[in-house]
Amino acid sequence: MQESLMIYNSLTRKKEEFKPIHAPHVGMYVCGPTVYGEAHLGHARPSVTFDILFRFLHFLGYKVRYVRNITDVGHLENDADEGEDKIAKKARLDELEPMEVVQEYTLNYHHCMQEMNVLPPSIEPRASGHIIEQQEYVRKILDSGYAYESNGSVYFNVEKYNKDFRYGILSGRNVEDMLSNTRSLDGQQEKRAPLDFALWKKASPEHIMQWNSDWSRGFPGWHLECSAMGEKYLGKEFDIHGGGMDLLFPHHECEIAQSTAANGKQAVRYWIHNNMITINGQKMGKSLGNFITLKQLFSGTHELLTQAYNPMTIRFFILQAHYRSTLDFSNEALQAAEKGMGRLLEGYEKITELPVSQTSSVSVADIEKKCLKAMLDDMNTPIVISHLFTALKTVHAVELGKETITDEDKKALLKIFEIYLFDILGIEQPNEKNENSSELLQKTITLLLDLRLQAKREKDYQKSDEIRDALTGMGVVIKDTKDGYEWKVN
Amino acid sequence: MQESLMIYNSLTRKKEEFKPIHAPHVGMYVCGPTVYGEAHLGHARPSVTFDILFRFLHFLGYKVRYVRNITDVGHLENDADEGEDKIAKKARLDELEPMEVVQEYTLNYHHCMQEMNVLPPSIEPRASGHIIEQQEYVRKILDSGYAYESNGSVYFNVEKYNKDFRYGILSGRNVEDMLSNTRSLDGQQEKRAPLDFALWKKASPEHIMQWNSDWSRGFPGWHLECSAMGEKYLGKEFDIHGGGMDLLFPHHECEIAQSTAANGKQAVRYWIHNNMITINGQKMGKSLGNFITLKQLFSGTHELLTQAYNPMTIRFFILQAHYRSTLDFSNEALQAAEKGMGRLLEGYEKITELPVSQTSSVSVADIEKKCLKAMLDDMNTPIVISHLFTALKTVHAVELGKETITDEDKKALLKIFEIYLFDILGIEQPNEKNENSSELLQKTITLLLDLRLQAKREKDYQKSDEIRDALTGMGVVIKDTKDGYEWKVN
Repeated sequence: MQESLMIYNSLTRKKEEFKPIHAPHVGMYVCGPTVYGEAHLGHARPSVTFDILFRFLHFLGYKVRYVRNITDVGHLENDADEGEDKIAKKARLDELEPMEVVQEYTLNYHHCMQEMNVLPPSIEPRASGHIIEQQEYVRKILDSGYAYESNGSVYFNVEKYNKDFRYGILSGRNVEDMLSNTRSLDGQQEKRAPLDFALWKKASPEHIMQWNSDWSRGFPGWHLECSAMGEKYLGKEFDIHGGGMDLLFPHHECEIAQSTAANGKQAVRYWIHNNMITINGQKMGKSLGNFITLKQLFSGTHELLTQAYNPMTIRFFILQAHYRSTLDFSNEALQAAEKGMGRLLEGYEKITELPVSQTSSVSVADIEKKCLKAMLDDMNTPIVISHLFTALKTVHAVELGKETITDEDKKALLKIFEIYLFDILGIEQPNEKNENSSELLQKTITLLLDLRLQAKREKDYQKSDEIRDALTGMGVVIKDTKDGYEWKVN
Repeated sequence: MQESLMIYNSLTRKKEEFKPIHAPHVGMYVCGPTVYGEAHLGHARPSVTFDILFRFLHFLGYKVRYVRNITDVGHLENDADEGEDKIAKKARLDELEPMEVVQEYTLNYHHCMQEMNVLPPSIEPRASGHIIEQQEYVRKILDSGYAYESNGSVYFNVEKYNKDFRYGILSGRNVEDMLSNTRSLDGQQEKRAPLDFALWKKASPEHIMQWNSDWSRGFPGWHLECSAMGEKYLGKEFDIHGGGMDLLFPHHECEIAQSTAANGKQAVRYWIHNNMITINGQKMGKSLGNFITLKQLFSGTHELLTQAYNPMTIRFFILQAHYRSTLDFSNEALQAAEKGMGRLLEGYEKITELPVSQTSSVSVADIEKKCLKAMLDDMNTPIVISHLFTALKTVHAVELGKETITDEDKKALLKIFEIYLFDILGIEQPNEKNENSSELLQKTITLLLDLRLQAKREKDYQKSDEIRDALTGMGVVIKDTKDGYEWKVN
């Protein structure tokens, strides 16, 4: 009997057994990108983390409906209730229609995710495509008495909500402390209290994205879309809500308040958060000059990068840390990941060639059990990887004749790599065929040039010229140097 | 001074000079797929046709905002006002949420378009994401008196509209003829007259996709989305509306009626329609067993296909016919396209190697002028291709020394291929790099084995073994035969 998946629930602050509401169906909602700029490392980590969960739940036999949204309206600068919409601002600066900005960066995000072998979610709803659903959600909260209209905008009444429920249940903050750390309102604002947050904002005339509503021409508050779209596609109660830890407060806290106010109960059973990424120990930020996009990583075109990194290297690197630990990017760490992943992939290639024996001196079943156990223990991918390295040691030991393996165990060993490295961790052989072919090409050309050099030394100029001419005819340009030769393909 | 683009306008039934409303800006709207099944040949032709127009307008210096929608709600079976929603039906059959169906086939469509080097549009709006905009459009038509509410649904009043304007202006049909070919209503229907079409449909309780409105919980009529989204992203009047000829009636006819009723004027200046595709002379249809998806074409996995076809072959094949001609798919025709495209690509590769002279005996400028002229003449891509074959003849004649070319003309010749074949027709070298690298590899290995054979003949067994061992070490398996050798890479 298989053990259960234990997963850390940010809401209860402990690991809990995962029990879906309607097994074998699982509903999972994850906060996707606000598409006003190129995908960067900060997008890669949650995408990969919840891709692993999506894959692993599937492996465990669940049928997962995975919803990951695209925020294309309502996300204001500084994640606040005032200021310009992030996408509208980018559109204004680039002289584009906001939806042109959305299209460009949605495509960029999709491209990068595909490169990193992140599976597409089951549904990818857009905030701007669910205005009616969000308006209906505002209406429900107004009707239940936890929101008020003010000058065409609608705000969530945190104080009133906090009397009946608890605002801060997810983040562990309490309203009194938060209030004491907040400047009081100057009386000019629409909000009654500083902690109140917008559900619907009346648009100023110059605001490009606005829709009619019962309250004003305006747009939804940022926190609302996830409550509305989560309910639409997963129901009033669903299993998992994920996202980066930076979204825990206020975004997810507000989501809980919204769904509790609207429906009298929380929507989500398990809140799962991945930790943050730092770069050489520093927080990533545009002003710090360490803001690296995925495209730059793939091509090595940022001044902090000493080389280009294969998307699989970045994926493997992310998985070498537990998703709830911080993760520090550096060239050294990425290069180590590249090397480690390469060794695993090479080891996998060797398995089929291993000699088989009547008996196994190694326990392959044991490795498989440990991999499963690590995944079941709050998706501990670094431990899974360490067990794959143990499997690699087994491969080498059998190769050297130090250990023996049966044919059956050999197949089981192959399967461990296929299930854990490829299916669950989602690592792909990076352009295997092309790289092999070009590596072999390097070797054959080098061998030919060595033969030519040898012929020259033996004063067999006819042969050395013959090789040279043949290579030149193939487009290989040879340059003789003091130490031998250099060459390139034209 | 460059000539103008002449384009066939389905509305006036003649070629007209293209004059944008707000040059250099051009607004272009094209009907995209209804995403309830895999992308097929019927999707490929409009996508490629309007991709060519998008690319060519860009080449002419225009700034194009290209909107291509995704229909994810409202498109009922048989393109009618009654029956099940195409996507909801597929969702019901597959036991999925409709938006899961939408996600699957949108991704499939995007993937196929990317393979065929169809550029993404500037904005890709979804019908379900613009319910408010469509409701506002219904309201405008109701307010102007050309629609009526009936039992929670809203219908367009064709008879009344036809008195003030003309219903049938695009298709050339007239209302009297249409009425005489239509069964009269049985009095049980909500519609007052048989030609009336739905703007808003009240949903039956089991209908999965529905939204609140002033009239009922329901969903928009199929024709409405394009009017509403076109106006939202391109304005009340814009330049180009494109689509397949099968959409001309009733879909585009209804769009004209809607915008005229709502705004008192037509929205679109130039209506452009591509003709249909047949397969071995027959109309494509699921019941005829000749319904070939693009994925099947790319992999050769349909019983009508004798081989797999590169996406570029399909693209080239489509462009070998004028977009207003019908196009008949067959294995023979595709194979001919494959060969023709291959010859052009090979010819392009040869240009850099051509010997140069002081004078040109050929007129390269003339070829370029003709290519431009053909594109300006209603996007006559088959004529462009024929001029590229003339350019190819020039390449061969210079190669054989029958004609001469200056260095400058050689560069101009390269540029013709780069602009017309690559940039405008959008043909890509299929996997150029890999193929070159593997071809070179074949040659170097053959050369090494020839050297080994030669060493053997010269009884220099030390050398022949040295080469053999080196190659074996690289994974090249050599088998000596009576006539020499065979080899393969392990």
